[in-house]
Amino acid sequence: EDYDGPPVVGEYVTMLPHLKPLDYEGNKHHEIRLDTFTQEIEVADGVRFRAWTFGGMVPGPVIHVKEGDKITFTMKNRSDEMVTITKPGLEGSDYLKQISENDYMGAEPSIMPMPHSMDFHSGTVAKDDKWRTIAPGETISFDWYANYAGTYIYHCGTPSVLMHTAMGQHGVVVVSPKDGYETDDRVDEEYVVVQSEYYLKKGAGDLYQYDFEGAQTKQPSHVVFNGHQTILHDQPLTANEGERVRIHFSNNGPSLTSSFHVIGAIFDRVWLEGHPYNEMRGMQTVLLGASGSATVEFIVPEEGKYTLIDHEFADAEKGATGTLKAGPR
Amino acid sequence: EDYDGPPVVGEYVTMLPHLKPLDYEGNKHHEIRLDTFTQEIEVADGVRFRAWTFGGMVPGPVIHVKEGDKITFTMKNRSDEMVTITKPGLEGSDYLKQISENDYMGAEPSIMPMPHSMDFHSGTVAKDDKWRTIAPGETISFDWYANYAGTYIYHCGTPSVLMHTAMGQHGVVVVSPKDGYETDDRVDEEYVVVQSEYYLKKGAGDLYQYDFEGAQTKQPSHVVFNGHQTILHDQPLTANEGERVRIHFSNNGPSLTSSFHVIGAIFDRVWLEGHPYNEMRGMQTVLLGASGSATVEFIVPEEGKYTLIDHEFADAEKGATGTLKAGPR
Amino acid sequence: EDYDGPPVVGEYVTMLPHLKPLDYEGNKHHEIRLDTFTQEIEVADGVRFRAWTFGGMVPGPVIHVKEGDKITFTMKNRSDEMVTITKPGLEGSDYLKQISENDYMGAEPSIMPMPHSMDFHSGTVAKDDKWRTIAPGETISFDWYANYAGTYIYHCGTPSVLMHTAMGQHGVVVVSPKDGYETDDRVDEEYVVVQSEYYLKKGAGDLYQYDFEGAQTKQPSHVVFNGHQTILHDQPLTANEGERVRIHFSNNGPSLTSSFHVIGAIFDRVWLEGHPYNEMRGMQTVLLGASGSATVEFIVPEEGKYTLIDHEFADAEKGATGTLKAGPR
Ligand SMILES: [Cu+2]
Ligand SMILES: [Cu+2]
Ligand SMILES: [Cu+2]
Ligand SMILES: [Cu+2]
Ligand SMILES: [Cu+2]
Ligand SMILES: [Cu+2]
Ligand code: NA
Ligand code: NA
Ligand code: NA
Ligand code: NA
Ligand code: NA
Ligand code: NA
Ligand SMILES: [Zn+2]
Ligand SMILES: [Zn+2]
Ligand SMILES: [Zn+2]
Ligand SMILES: [Zn+2]
Ligand SMILES: [Zn+2]
Ligand SMILES: [Zn+2]
Ligand SMILES: [Zn+2]
Ligand SMILES: [Zn+2]
Ligand SMILES: [Zn+2]
Repeated sequence: EDYDGPPVVGEYVTMLPHLKPLDYEGNKHHEIRLDTFTQEIEVADGVRFRAWTFGGMVPGPVIHVKEGDKITFTMKNRSDEMVTITKPGLEGSDYLKQISENDYMGAEPSIMPMPHSMDFHSGTVAKDDKWRTIAPGETISFDWYANYAGTYIYHCGTPSVLMHTAMGQHGVVVVSPKDGYETDDRVDEEYVVVQSEYYLKKGAGDLYQYDFEGAQTKQPSHVVFNGHQTILHDQPLTANEGERVRIHFSNNGPSLTSSFHVIGAIFDRVWLEGHPYNEMRGMQTVLLGASGSATVEFIVPEEGKYTLIDHEFADAEKGATGTLKAGPR
Repeated sequence: EDYDGPPVVGEYVTMLPHLKPLDYEGNKHHEIRLDTFTQEIEVADGVRFRAWTFGGMVPGPVIHVKEGDKITFTMKNRSDEMVTITKPGLEGSDYLKQISENDYMGAEPSIMPMPHSMDFHSGTVAKDDKWRTIAPGETISFDWYANYAGTYIYHCGTPSVLMHTAMGQHGVVVVSPKDGYETDDRVDEEYVVVQSEYYLKKGAGDLYQYDFEGAQTKQPSHVVFNGHQTILHDQPLTANEGERVRIHFSNNGPSLTSSFHVIGAIFDRVWLEGHPYNEMRGMQTVLLGASGSATVEFIVPEEGKYTLIDHEFADAEKGATGTLKAGPR
Repeated sequence: EDYDGPPVVGEYVTMLPHLKPLDYEGNKHHEIRLDTFTQEIEVADGVRFRAWTFGGMVPGPVIHVKEGDKITFTMKNRSDEMVTITKPGLEGSDYLKQISENDYMGAEPSIMPMPHSMDFHSGTVAKDDKWRTIAPGETISFDWYANYAGTYIYHCGTPSVLMHTAMGQHGVVVVSPKDGYETDDRVDEEYVVVQSEYYLKKGAGDLYQYDFEGAQTKQPSHVVFNGHQTILHDQPLTANEGERVRIHFSNNGPSLTSSFHVIGAIFDRVWLEGHPYNEMRGMQTVLLGASGSATVEFIVPEEGKYTLIDHEFADAEKGATGTLKAGPR
């Protein structure tokens, strides 16, 4: 395929922590493109590396669909191509507009030709067909159906999956339940937050590179929310006193658990994996496996600051924290 | 504040594994004091260190309230003061009476001036106000409401939280549901058990000290129940054949999960986070994140010994075991 | 006891991943023997060690009973005896027939005299009696009742339990609920899969041996399904397009969690610990503690290959993967 258009296309495709509301009745057929390519990005103050990405950031874009929707998905492996994502005027998705206005990773095009693939946990398919690996320059296209509500990881499934995901190839699909959650009418703010680990060490020059031993021994260099060690402090989530905040939280791993907590709040509702059937109440903390998720809600008790945290404090100290800033009622 | 009275005050404040029954109708306004100060304590045979404590032990006192109660909480940072907690006649709480009768940690006053704070997971507040850090000699006082039933950790939230909690600053609040648990009439014994990790290495002299690298790499020296490697064997929980035993179990971390199991028993009921809505049945093992809890119940099948254990055996071998001794019917 | 008959006896006792259907009405009294003895086995290509086993394999046999059944259990410690399990014609259980036809571990009798014991998580008993340790040559026999439905680990409980289980002494009991699962009529395939860790390093000669430091620091050499790094690829589970597959999945540890996922599928039903009360729906991944289990079901969307995986990718790369091969409708 000779495609050199916008690398991310889709009406309901946004940059973290944003989730585009679904403004349609019934079901929809989505046409979504998510190209994979290399970008040099910052993931912590002074820490840059050549990430393998979906759409140029880590994690990749948030895809929002409804239970029952059909998705025609296309991906070109452009890892051998310089792809610029930060210039204004890029059409195709809210995601591209958002990144051009808010390039918090300081993304710079880079080349690292590599076979890649796509595995949507939100879809049910035979992986040897649709999740197959494609070479640089190749394009894959397939349909999948959002048969189950929930918040799902997507990621590259090419071996070493540990390396491909740790290098940045993961993101989230939110499949909103067709009959909604019981609290839909009362939700004031809705966000998506993703936890993930980096395994990096100083490389030649100023760039960091993949730490094989760290990855194999589960000793990450950074554990982060939305791909960057301080982004959710630099650009806090916002809400107001008395509001109900919903967060679709996904622990994209690749290897560790997360004990997700919000300092100062208690989760009024928790739906494990984001599925309305799996409801819990009154939780201080929700424990998530690698590629596990939860949709949580809490009510902001008063004006002030709230901290999102992996309460496994060794991981929190490696960066797994963020802020929600609450204004007055 | 010039306060030099009893460091722990409160009518429903006890030493682990005890939980004082709530003998009042409706709701209550509790006035609770929990000062923070340094104590040299034993945490395993031959292992003593200068712990940062709430109330002089690790974990700190158990606070028992009812859903809907109001708590006026006061804490003085007395880390720069020699505070004696083991002498008879200390008024203020059952906790102080219990420690004076049963000083199983061999607590000795010590000084290590340090800023500290208090974060009650059972409360919903803006942390930049009520969870704020206070210097040695300062006192903080604030109200919170027990809006959600459950078993909750409290802990110091001052950076490095990993270090402050690993040094000993954590405990448990049990918020009993206002409408009770379905099994309340059938429970014969009710206990509180807390799991936590120590990260210690030999220091100068005979005392142990904090092991920064162990803490950062999640390699604890000791994983314990109720703060001491052998306390729940030296002083087992007790019950009788046929009785229903309830344990409020909290995994206070700071970093690891717990796969809590009782050898010889099956959990007839499990309420995740201690909330009555989150009921599970027939569980051999309940998995808890860091700052996760569960209220579990089992029926003692026969006279004999039962072992409480983190079934993650590498952690069990570091001490995360205890005994329940069951007498005849 | 002078017993030198078949080391595994029982009508509903099979080799992983098989589960023998229960073809009786009401409850039954099972007489089950599971001797413990040493076998040199292969656990990965080129990796052999002298395993401590129940019944000669790792994990040991699958025991299937019904909620309410009584089990009279007998075990001889034959760790000081050469026991052959691979020869044809061994009577006593389907397990022995299956291993004689499919000796995928290349089991060879070996001797390592050692005290051992048996702890069935499916039973409720005082461990100081029935779970007691017996010396080589001794036999233990006791009754237990399957009072709670679910999928349970059994294991040796002799110290160091970390070592005894890591050396191979664990297996699974499936207790089918007396009123069944809601989906019983629709299940087409039913399997048992067990995850566990090995802590091995090169020993003298060609054999591997136990790695004490690896075990204590939670750094396994191999993380496997059904005891062998590639067995579930070499001998995939099978099903057909459109079928509902049920897997009783047990994470036998000894120390790590598992984030169990099937690539290409979503769990339509999950019963935590295998108990029908603990139902979840629409899960991409289920997180299990050490000695935690889940009964999961998914519908095979199309012909092709599906990968069972611990989505904690550092563990997946150590072997925690397997294949389900789906034929046409
Ligand atoms: Cu890739
Ligand atoms: Cu906390
Ligand atoms: Cu502190
Ligand atoms: Cu066990
Ligand atoms: Cu043994
Ligand atoms: Cu995956
Ligand atoms: Na999937
Ligand atoms: Na974590
Ligand atoms: Na809180
Ligand atoms: Na643990
Ligand atoms: Na048991
Ligand atoms: Na794992
Ligand atoms: Zn927004
Ligand atoms: Zn269409
Ligand atoms: Zn907190
Ligand atoms: Zn007591
Ligand atoms: Zn009052
Ligand atoms: Zn056990
Ligand atoms: Zn079979
Ligand atoms: Zn009988
Ligand atoms: Zn997958």
